[in-house]
Amino acid sequence: MNGTHRATVTTSRDEAEIRRLMVEQEAGMKAHDAERLVARYAPDAVVFDLAPPLAYRAPELLDPDGVRNWFAGFERSVDYEIRDLTVTAGEDVAFCHSLHRLSATPRGTTDRFDLWFRVTTGMRKVDGAWRVTHEHKSTPFYMDGSFKAAIDLRP
Amino acid sequence: MNGTHRATVTTSRDEAEIRRLMVEQEAGMKAHDAERLVARYAPDAVVFDLAPPLAYRAPELLDPDGVRNWFAGFERSVDYEIRDLTVTAGEDVAFCHSLHRLSATPRGTTDRFDLWFRVTTGMRKVDGAWRVTHEHKSTPFYMDGSFKAAIDLRP
Repeated sequence: MNGTHRATVTTSRDEAEIRRLMVEQEAGMKAHDAERLVARYAPDAVVFDLAPPLAYRAPELLDPDGVRNWFAGFERSVDYEIRDLTVTAGEDVAFCHSLHRLSATPRGTTDRFDLWFRVTTGMRKVDGAWRVTHEHKSTPFYMDGSFKAAIDLRP
Repeated sequence: MNGTHRATVTTSRDEAEIRRLMVEQEAGMKAHDAERLVARYAPDAVVFDLAPPLAYRAPELLDPDGVRNWFAGFERSVDYEIRDLTVTAGEDVAFCHSLHRLSATPRGTTDRFDLWFRVTTGMRKVDGAWRVTHEHKSTPFYMDGSFKAAIDLRP
């Protein structure tokens, strides 16, 4: 289910640039490259992340030190995979949804985990270049009274 | 922070229709109107919901009986509120992000809860009418080892 809904005025160049922005995330995570990861965002981006609070914005969102601190919590070799990417693209507005896998080992442990989560990415073309203006990452949670995040799901 | 990023070709009629689709959700929830809620979705919509699995699609997504069963789990008078709606709209592709509050009382209890969660909505104009083709609802979860959904956050 890797698909594209192409609006009337979308060019293949737009589509390639949109997909490249998603691959940047995968590549930046694998390379532990904080600058590369924050460079995807427009200055006014709003991100709903896996961890609280409800929303992240600049300046925190655009600070590579925050990402570096996050990487420092893991042993080397974070792995990252994007699956089922579906792109809906117009002339200057686009959104994607996909399933992402983060595999990592918390520092000081040997407990490697695989976490699958859902990602929705909103993009705008700003001065001719596509940038991420919104991102929403999440797991669902169990409604069995435990209110536990569903971190054991597989696509 | 109720804003609109208007792409060059967006009309105020498009914007009004996009906002109407969000109000439909609020109104449909307050009215316990299952048909009204499922009518917002395009046939190929993909929804990342608060509860597992990772994704919902037709036919399950478009079945008003599923929504009716969900309402049946609560005492009368579900309340619903949408806050901080930000719309990014192009000619035929748009996305919104917002914070939603669901207040309800599980049937057979007096334990009324207020749950705030994040919502991202993707829309396409299909045959001249805006429809929801993607929706992502979530809470973050606590990364303190508990993996509990963060159901106590307030905007």
